[in-house]
Amino acid sequence: MNKKAVILLSGGLDSTTILYAAKRKKFHPCCLIFDYGQRHKKEIRQAKKGAEFARADYKIVNFQLPWKGSSLLDKSLKLPARKKINTKEIPSTYVPGRNIIFLSFAVSFAEAIGAKAVFIGANAIDFSGYPDCRREFFNAYQKMMAKGLKTGVQGKNIKIYVPLINKTKEQIIKMGMKLKVPYDLTWSCYAGNQRPCGKCDSCSLRAKGFVEAGFIDPAA
Amino acid sequence: MNKKAVILLSGGLDSTTILYAAKRKKFHPCCLIFDYGQRHKKEIRQAKKGAEFARADYKIVNFQLPWKGSSLLDKSLKLPARKKINTKEIPSTYVPGRNIIFLSFAVSFAEAIGAKAVFIGANAIDFSGYPDCRREFFNAYQKMMAKGLKTGVQGKNIKIYVPLINKTKEQIIKMGMKLKVPYDLTWSCYAGNQRPCGKCDSCSLRAKGFVEAGFIDPAA
Repeated sequence: MNKKAVILLSGGLDSTTILYAAKRKKFHPCCLIFDYGQRHKKEIRQAKKGAEFARADYKIVNFQLPWKGSSLLDKSLKLPARKKINTKEIPSTYVPGRNIIFLSFAVSFAEAIGAKAVFIGANAIDFSGYPDCRREFFNAYQKMMAKGLKTGVQGKNIKIYVPLINKTKEQIIKMGMKLKVPYDLTWSCYAGNQRPCGKCDSCSLRAKGFVEAGFIDPAA
Repeated sequence: MNKKAVILLSGGLDSTTILYAAKRKKFHPCCLIFDYGQRHKKEIRQAKKGAEFARADYKIVNFQLPWKGSSLLDKSLKLPARKKINTKEIPSTYVPGRNIIFLSFAVSFAEAIGAKAVFIGANAIDFSGYPDCRREFFNAYQKMMAKGLKTGVQGKNIKIYVPLINKTKEQIIKMGMKLKVPYDLTWSCYAGNQRPCGKCDSCSLRAKGFVEAGFIDPAA
């Protein structure tokens, strides 16, 4: 039996790519999907479809953050248009502690099922404004796990893999095409309409990535 | 206006004591209460009562861990009786990553409301078997926050206070009596009956603490 790995799966392009990267590394993928008050439920449906298509196990964790502070969760705030993106600033879509929360569930899940690894699709190129998407953060998180988890103090560290951390969207898509990622099943748009809006930050990054990688987006 | 502090409040003796410790330090307390599938809901009711009595603000976060692995959450597992407690071993009540998850919500909440501190009632004396109750863990967590939070990278660290970390139950109760903690409103029993069971790990520790501190437990 393959070693298990927990995959943080949002159903988007990046996280679906790492699901296939984990499979390539011969891990049995156990996906963790969050239902945490995203602007739309489409993301969750897509994530489930993606996990099923990949023959991965999955669990869904529901939680609500009863505080505001991010345009991704707070429908009264406007989503930033692409032109306003400035990677030197922390964008309005930053959710305080989001990856800290996501990883905390992932490492709990990993320890409970005896998984050896956690995969997260964070990326420091396109999202350099998010402190919790940078290598330094993941290194510090890994050190904290060594002190706070049963597996950690027993010297059996669960390893956090961040395979996309230094990749551009173009490089991620090229990697994913080699891994035969079904990009038609992935969803990146911040809005939750029938079709991607084509205007939001996430749509723009995706479109640019496909153009630069030289592929046609099967979901566009 | 006082600086805000987030208090992780379970409604038990330890967390209620730190609520009053935070008030003594002139923080305005904003309690965070978790509804995460505890064996009984009494804990949550008591926590709300405790927060209201202390004139603190509070938020409740609901989540479920859809994986097993702890007798505290899994009703099919037997709770350990006091005689079986061995602080060198990790007890069956250990929940993988529990304090990691709790703190992740606390720091998100703290950042969202501009709080300067997070108080957690962890204790390394009575719970030395839990890796996430030790000073080394909290130090590592604090370092991780400096890398992963907006406030952290901006050099405005939210400080984690663990005022009970090296205190015995006797010392905690003596401290709490000075702070006028309403211990009649606190609940420690792992079971959720009308009255504390008097037998579980938590009841036994509490009873021993009151005897050693020389006070009568107003909730017994």
